[in-house]
Amino acid sequence: MAEQDLTELEQEAPREDGAELDEENRLKPQFVNAVIEALDQGDESRAYELVEPLHPADIADLFELLERDQRRRLAAAITDLLTGEVIAELNDYVRDDMMEALPASAVAEIAEQLDTDDAVQLIEDLEPEDQRAILAEMEPEDRAAIESALSYPEESAGRLMQRELVAVPEHLSVGDLIDYLREHDELTTEFWEVFIVDHTHKPVGTCQLSWILRTPRQIPLADVMKRDQTLIPVTMDQEEVALRFQKYALISAAVVDEDGRLVGQITVDDVVHIIQEEADEDVMLLSGAGEGDINEPIRESYSARVRWLMANLITASVASFVIYRFEGVLAQLITLAVLMPIVAGIGGNAGTQTLAVTVRALATNQLTSSNSWRAVRRELSIALLNGLSLALVTGTAVSILFADWSLGLPAGIEWHLGLVIGLAMMANILIAGMAGVVVPLTIERFRADPAIASSIFVTMTTDSMGFLVFLGLAVATGLVN
Amino acid sequence: MAEQDLTELEQEAPREDGAELDEENRLKPQFVNAVIEALDQGDESRAYELVEPLHPADIADLFELLERDQRRRLAAAITDLLTGEVIAELNDYVRDDMMEALPASAVAEIAEQLDTDDAVQLIEDLEPEDQRAILAEMEPEDRAAIESALSYPEESAGRLMQRELVAVPEHLSVGDLIDYLREHDELTTEFWEVFIVDHTHKPVGTCQLSWILRTPRQIPLADVMKRDQTLIPVTMDQEEVALRFQKYALISAAVVDEDGRLVGQITVDDVVHIIQEEADEDVMLLSGAGEGDINEPIRESYSARVRWLMANLITASVASFVIYRFEGVLAQLITLAVLMPIVAGIGGNAGTQTLAVTVRALATNQLTSSNSWRAVRRELSIALLNGLSLALVTGTAVSILFADWSLGLPAGIEWHLGLVIGLAMMANILIAGMAGVVVPLTIERFRADPAIASSIFVTMTTDSMGFLVFLGLAVATGLVN
Repeated sequence: MAEQDLTELEQEAPREDGAELDEENRLKPQFVNAVIEALDQGDESRAYELVEPLHPADIADLFELLERDQRRRLAAAITDLLTGEVIAELNDYVRDDMMEALPASAVAEIAEQLDTDDAVQLIEDLEPEDQRAILAEMEPEDRAAIESALSYPEESAGRLMQRELVAVPEHLSVGDLIDYLREHDELTTEFWEVFIVDHTHKPVGTCQLSWILRTPRQIPLADVMKRDQTLIPVTMDQEEVALRFQKYALISAAVVDEDGRLVGQITVDDVVHIIQEEADEDVMLLSGAGEGDINEPIRESYSARVRWLMANLITASVASFVIYRFEGVLAQLITLAVLMPIVAGIGGNAGTQTLAVTVRALATNQLTSSNSWRAVRRELSIALLNGLSLALVTGTAVSILFADWSLGLPAGIEWHLGLVIGLAMMANILIAGMAGVVVPLTIERFRADPAIASSIFVTMTTDSMGFLVFLGLAVATGLVN
Repeated sequence: MAEQDLTELEQEAPREDGAELDEENRLKPQFVNAVIEALDQGDESRAYELVEPLHPADIADLFELLERDQRRRLAAAITDLLTGEVIAELNDYVRDDMMEALPASAVAEIAEQLDTDDAVQLIEDLEPEDQRAILAEMEPEDRAAIESALSYPEESAGRLMQRELVAVPEHLSVGDLIDYLREHDELTTEFWEVFIVDHTHKPVGTCQLSWILRTPRQIPLADVMKRDQTLIPVTMDQEEVALRFQKYALISAAVVDEDGRLVGQITVDDVVHIIQEEADEDVMLLSGAGEGDINEPIRESYSARVRWLMANLITASVASFVIYRFEGVLAQLITLAVLMPIVAGIGGNAGTQTLAVTVRALATNQLTSSNSWRAVRRELSIALLNGLSLALVTGTAVSILFADWSLGLPAGIEWHLGLVIGLAMMANILIAGMAGVVVPLTIERFRADPAIASSIFVTMTTDSMGFLVFLGLAVATGLVN
């Protein structure tokens, strides 16, 4: 470590060399264990020495990898390394847990180092009384900015934006702007474009920094700026914000209030987290895993997941009720009970495939009412091909295998059985394809999130219809009576 | 439209006002239909008039919403609106389809307008002979840049980077840099930081543009630049690149070759697409939906999905084989056949929940070997709680319902049946929780992608074990013999 400390005095070591990181840029288990060992031995200065060379984002990762009590002990050991940058990078649950353990004055001190958006994230999930205690410790100006941000709905642009930005009037020249930037020390350094505003503080244009740097001093800003810009209303949902950033390849964007006045900016580094979160949210919703965060308290994970399982218990009961109606049929030919889960299961898989494609296409605005009919046709074509393939394979396999294996099946019945399972498979895969695209489209039309309830409906359909079609065809074709 | 054209002369209309877009920033179906109608009537100038006011990203969306033949007709009608920006925003499949329809010289002309990374994207998926024909039409310099990019592996940093960047030696002052930027017209305007390099063109530091603008002319760059920067090796996989951008909140980053020399830069707007793609990829892999793109040719979608369904057919057959071994048991008490899909199905759902959480935590580097034991304990705790809840509800429900409904069940047997299904449910949910976390962790340890095969293994386990435990317990507890 001594050598590394030496380098630190001259310059930070380039990240690629970090001996603490493995080839995928994750903290090495040996390193994490060394920190835990130091904490367990009560050797706080050793823990400090180990953690000090890390990048803030890696310190945040370290906290996430530790157990709850280890986190608190580490926080105590390295308090002055616990900068705003570390806090901003922490997982929500880990951060809330750590903030609850710190005194209000310490949290207030950290919050004051941060941009508004990060400070808001720091305290928005805390209990109201804790929030009040922390805000009371802050400078009036910072406090006002945070209180105003908290007045916007959760997951809105107002929560996401930072108030720190550079806005100048249109009549300036490039040279004036550069002088202004050099003279005002209090301005943020975190900006990627300069917003040009009129006298009522409404945005009239925007100037990417590279354009300013490439332009002679005497040229007026009005000649360099782009008038066409994406304005984000302060109440816009964060998912919408992320879609705009993606669609228009934005690095930052102006946030405006209901009167069209510039009130903040959103930068792409915050949006990157949201894109990740929103995509994750769909994975989790489709599988009923709640927030699906490995740092979520067990109680919350249990509560989200058990609700989903209970809902599935109901849909499974519907399927069982279908079977119950065919008890007499099953008693005649018990082999039907052996084969029926295959029809239901493959239908379920086919439905899930279509559902995943449809839900993500809806979430990314690739599927709209303009092309939904095409999507339905497309899914049905694929279902038809899949259904034919699976029907052929399953039907043939059953016809052959059950000729040999059959426990007292009447001779020649295996071909009939193969035909019934093939037809049922075909039908259920078509039903699955239809349900997988129509259910989420319908839910979306009612302006609900198609990721939430779709898979319950689709599974119920494929399960129940799988049993119904298979057992029903067995009766209808005279395999049993 | 006349009014809008007038505004166009003065300034581009701000996007928020676009009459073509709905409140979620998607093209309105009425607008899309108007374009289709104009194309169907052969009224190319009307189609042009409609499309002209659109932002390039919206023109790209319009192409994606059309049918294949409509796309080609629209492309013919609005050729000069088909700029590099539009092409870069197009969905991969739609773009390849359109490029195949254009002559090589037209594609070459479009490619020359683009940054290297976008030009590479334009032609990388075309047939080798088409690629050669297009490259032959290009300026030698552009051609060399693209050929060199194509020499890097697919989905690597080398494909993703643009060669256009600003790199200057360390001895310059801020004023020298600004003069250099103003004097060299050929430099790119798409840069967010300036890279400082030594005489061998190795990066020694980086300067965010806002720092340059905030600093007096005479200050040397060496005093402003940050020496600690994230360097991306040219062969790094794009998923890794995206994780670095996220972790360190990067806007752009230097790409270096194996000798550490600066060869390109990657900017966050390209990474944003990758984060989306990689998260989508996990949704699709978990559900076996291949690429899962609604613009993917049907043949490719069918081929990816049918393979998955065939694999699931094998696992479903394993489960059926378990039932087959219990045929005699089922014949004794057909009610077991009615209830067995519930045990298997709920187990499958519970396994999917755990799997989704584990796969995403692995993909985002939140789950590493340092905390995998904690994750296993966590999932087992949740499984225990879920198992107890579901066992209680199902066991009780079966005991009560089957007392009323039973078709010839021996008196009092419903309690025994309730006990058996409750215990089986408990066991299968625990098995599901264990499989859902251990299977992906094991696959990851063997350096394979846990999203691909995990769900096949987990479903096979929960299905087979569901039937085995339920029917096995029925025999073991003497419900049947």
